[in-house]
Amino acid sequence: MSAFEQASSIERESADLYRAEVQDGWDIAGNANGGYLLSIAARALADAAGYPHPASITAHYLAPGRPGPVEVRTSRLRKGGSFATARATVMRGERPILAVLGSFTTLPERSDDPGEASATDRVDAVPPELPAPDDCVATSVGPVEGFGFNHKVDLRLHPGDDFRSTPSGEPRMRGWFRWPDESPIDVMSLMVAVDAFPPTIFNARLPIAWTPTLELTAHVRAQPVPGWLRCQFTTRFITGGFLEEDGEVWDSSGRLVAQSRQLALLPKPR
Amino acid sequence: MSAFEQASSIERESADLYRAEVQDGWDIAGNANGGYLLSIAARALADAAGYPHPASITAHYLAPGRPGPVEVRTSRLRKGGSFATARATVMRGERPILAVLGSFTTLPERSDDPGEASATDRVDAVPPELPAPDDCVATSVGPVEGFGFNHKVDLRLHPGDDFRSTPSGEPRMRGWFRWPDESPIDVMSLMVAVDAFPPTIFNARLPIAWTPTLELTAHVRAQPVPGWLRCQFTTRFITGGFLEEDGEVWDSSGRLVAQSRQLALLPKPR
Repeated sequence: MSAFEQASSIERESADLYRAEVQDGWDIAGNANGGYLLSIAARALADAAGYPHPASITAHYLAPGRPGPVEVRTSRLRKGGSFATARATVMRGERPILAVLGSFTTLPERSDDPGEASATDRVDAVPPELPAPDDCVATSVGPVEGFGFNHKVDLRLHPGDDFRSTPSGEPRMRGWFRWPDESPIDVMSLMVAVDAFPPTIFNARLPIAWTPTLELTAHVRAQPVPGWLRCQFTTRFITGGFLEEDGEVWDSSGRLVAQSRQLALLPKPR
Repeated sequence: MSAFEQASSIERESADLYRAEVQDGWDIAGNANGGYLLSIAARALADAAGYPHPASITAHYLAPGRPGPVEVRTSRLRKGGSFATARATVMRGERPILAVLGSFTTLPERSDDPGEASATDRVDAVPPELPAPDDCVATSVGPVEGFGFNHKVDLRLHPGDDFRSTPSGEPRMRGWFRWPDESPIDVMSLMVAVDAFPPTIFNARLPIAWTPTLELTAHVRAQPVPGWLRCQFTTRFITGGFLEEDGEVWDSSGRLVAQSRQLALLPKPR
């Protein structure tokens, strides 16, 4: 079992009730990463739905995720055709910390064969251009204490988006994603990848220290093949105290495997 | 009460239970429009949440909406700060037709004063360029029978996107939206606007008759001022039997008031 599989594993206690453990060390400043929390809920929902892959999944973040035991209470609303829809609440004691709604299916096995694309397929986009991983900037540096999550993922930021040296002025983050133990990227790994990068706002030259996520939706478009994920997150609208972050995640064969959008809150400037 | 307010009105029966009527005539081919169904759920959720405006709301479509009575079963998961999160299931008899999850708030009253933008506001986009409404193509033509929804909204398609004369080749729909009775566009109207336009795929020159919506998420970014809404829906990825539709809705003062994304299913070509 990979480190990620172990950290996001669930145990079925009874129909519609799962137990899991939010592990220590998947946090930024004490709060568990939102994608990591989502992966726990997604595993429980996939089991409850009876299909392994979330086609579309939405989480609303209700309270910070601290290390410790959680309960995932699920309810399957519909199963039919090749999809099932289910919802979940992740509870820490009596406190809900995450509300999730998703539709699950079985995505086709992927190969590197480009000939498998259907006659109706059409892509009006290209993967982000990135220097090779070793020519990008690793974020897994600095103290583990308080920044554990940075050491649980292997992120390589595009040098032009390395806000820690020079914010680019563009609210964008581009880079590579893999697991530090190089375990295969599966569909559940995408739940983490869509929320693993630093906030786009860190490149916007605004005096903002953090942007809490209100809601995150991910569409999984295909099972990824092994290898690095190529990721891009952009923000076009910083207005009225909100900003969106649009994510694209491409696998090493050049296929879009996930799209994401989150709505985050913009605190008043310091 | 406007025609839309009447058609989407709810009645609180007890804590967490609302009754509504899916009205005849809001359908395409017998199935109620998805945005209209969402507006019913959103009204019940806003009441249950204790805040009037959905900041982010997600619906999963479980079964077609036919005219007749429905129950909206709600549950508020959290209220605190300036947001509340709640979920709902819209039931026709014992059959769930819509599952919804949303976070609600009170958005500021809007004015036409551009000076109200905060120092941190930033918009990297412009509203779609459209000919004047009377130089666009009205979709409220043709039979009411089986196309009632087209007569419940006043849509004016960009002439370049009028798939009925010549599909453009680009999976995109641009146009104006208002209510036929010119009643004010409020936040709940946006629930309809984000799903009112014909599928983008109709302009893609693919032999596809319909793309059922699996999931729709809308972010409301501001209260609209009165007047026509300027709308744009685009698709960049038609892959693996799925396509996304990204929507932007701008009010007549030139502000983005809503963003939307839906995941739809691509049936096998005819």
